[in-house]
Amino acid sequence: MNSPLHDRIAESFGRQRLLATLGARLLRVADGEVDIELPWSEAIQQQHGFVHAGAIATIADSACGYACLTRMPEGSAVLSVEFKINLMAPAAPDMGNFIARGRVVRMGRTIGVATAEVVATGSSKDEMCIALMQATMMRVEPKNGAGG
Amino acid sequence: MNSPLHDRIAESFGRQRLLATLGARLLRVADGEVDIELPWSEAIQQQHGFVHAGAIATIADSACGYACLTRMPEGSAVLSVEFKINLMAPAAPDMGNFIARGRVVRMGRTIGVATAEVVATGSSKDEMCIALMQATMMRVEPKNGAGG
Amino acid sequence: MNSPLHDRIAESFGRQRLLATLGARLLRVADGEVDIELPWSEAIQQQHGFVHAGAIATIADSACGYACLTRMPEGSAVLSVEFKINLMAPAAPDMGNFIARGRVVRMGRTIGVATAEVVATGSSKDEMCIALMQATMMRVEPKNGAGG
Amino acid sequence: MNSPLHDRIAESFGRQRLLATLGARLLRVADGEVDIELPWSEAIQQQHGFVHAGAIATIADSACGYACLTRMPEGSAVLSVEFKINLMAPAAPDMGNFIARGRVVRMGRTIGVATAEVVATGSSKDEMCIALMQATMMRVEPKNGAGG
Repeated sequence: MNSPLHDRIAESFGRQRLLATLGARLLRVADGEVDIELPWSEAIQQQHGFVHAGAIATIADSACGYACLTRMPEGSAVLSVEFKINLMAPAAPDMGNFIARGRVVRMGRTIGVATAEVVATGSSKDEMCIALMQATMMRVEPKNGAGG
Repeated sequence: MNSPLHDRIAESFGRQRLLATLGARLLRVADGEVDIELPWSEAIQQQHGFVHAGAIATIADSACGYACLTRMPEGSAVLSVEFKINLMAPAAPDMGNFIARGRVVRMGRTIGVATAEVVATGSSKDEMCIALMQATMMRVEPKNGAGG
Repeated sequence: MNSPLHDRIAESFGRQRLLATLGARLLRVADGEVDIELPWSEAIQQQHGFVHAGAIATIADSACGYACLTRMPEGSAVLSVEFKINLMAPAAPDMGNFIARGRVVRMGRTIGVATAEVVATGSSKDEMCIALMQATMMRVEPKNGAGG
Repeated sequence: MNSPLHDRIAESFGRQRLLATLGARLLRVADGEVDIELPWSEAIQQQHGFVHAGAIATIADSACGYACLTRMPEGSAVLSVEFKINLMAPAAPDMGNFIARGRVVRMGRTIGVATAEVVATGSSKDEMCIALMQATMMRVEPKNGAGG
């Protein structure tokens, strides 16, 4: 059975059409921590057959934002102020799934900072960190009552 | 008729499956300058109905990368080392199309720096800058002969 | 004679001990635009005789912050939320002075985005852009009445 | 007694005039890890009496660079390609010393990625993380034989 915190994040996640378009899945929710998984698919490739940096950034950004959201009062919404990502290794088709692990570093009243490492979970070898994000998030009061 | 430079970028662009998945189009290619357009669609939304930051980052990253590629020797391939993006205004459905304008700031032998502003082209009002990226790109010699 | 806007920035600048320690000077203030100059000196060198990236970042950060401050209500204070800087060329002793040109991209009610290019003003050759910053600034109400 | 790795970093550190100007000290060197300490002083203040973001960035940048240098072949020199830093809390005079802890995330043949957290070591309370950097470093072959 899922926790209320998980349900709150999952409800918002389910409304993110881009995450569905890319095939991303919500993997894990805990206090200050959210993991998002992205399986390899042709639809997210760049010109050399690797996963596009933009798809990697999308799951890392969402993981950072949701990690911060777990530390905000209920009913809050989260917006990305900015993020920076280093792509450290090509995300190749044979690397298995990609998991973005968002972690809150500090959540203030309005501004939060989070990081996300994106790892490839190869079948036989160890996890490999392929990207690292550092992001600034902002808490906003949603106008229409829809948080997340 | 398109220039050879345009054709070179367009050929690589055509192999980027994620850009097709998002509905992005190559708009303009010049020396050190590449513009990419993204029409609003439900498939790229986040949870509040705006365009997801990851989709905005995807076209900005590609515009930066291709702007650098126009200054690399033919046969080179471009990889994103890292990028940073500020999201300055929500990308709403009624804002028309979104255009990422990638511009080379400096292209060295291996490392290049580019910026991209992303503007919304509303029907009746002036253009509005909704995001700004600063990116580091790298020239690599493709192993399999496929540049771009 | 200086404008009231210039005087307001200059008063705050004068309280920045680090800028005096490095030898930086306030060069120009206009609406949304602040230029800061840093002459080469041994005191700001890194291990190879170039100006340390931290000194370059210091004047770029201050130029971004003050550029945003020109667009804030009087009495406001500005804090750096975060910044990112690309160092594009070594800042060598024979390059003359270094000027950071901070420009507001967008100033909201609380959060602002600015960029700063840092150029070297060589004696005989053209200006050369050696660094580029993109920064997020925040407006705060000073507790003790001291703005800037 | 110091290790050869420590001596190699310390030799380069000693040539960094800006670090001496700011009062920074090399605290610890290990494989992929370098800590740099900065005591509070008036010379590094900004206009509100806190340590200037540029001084914090300087020790974080140096800690990231030296962390990468510990993983490079002897005789290599390290240059900052770019860095991004979030300032999460003001660095106040009563916070004791500030320590930047640089850690390698990945060091390739030419390009490396490192992070640095900057903590304040208050006298009576726990350590507090006041800043976080994510940086891209580059290995170069020094022209004049001086590594570091």
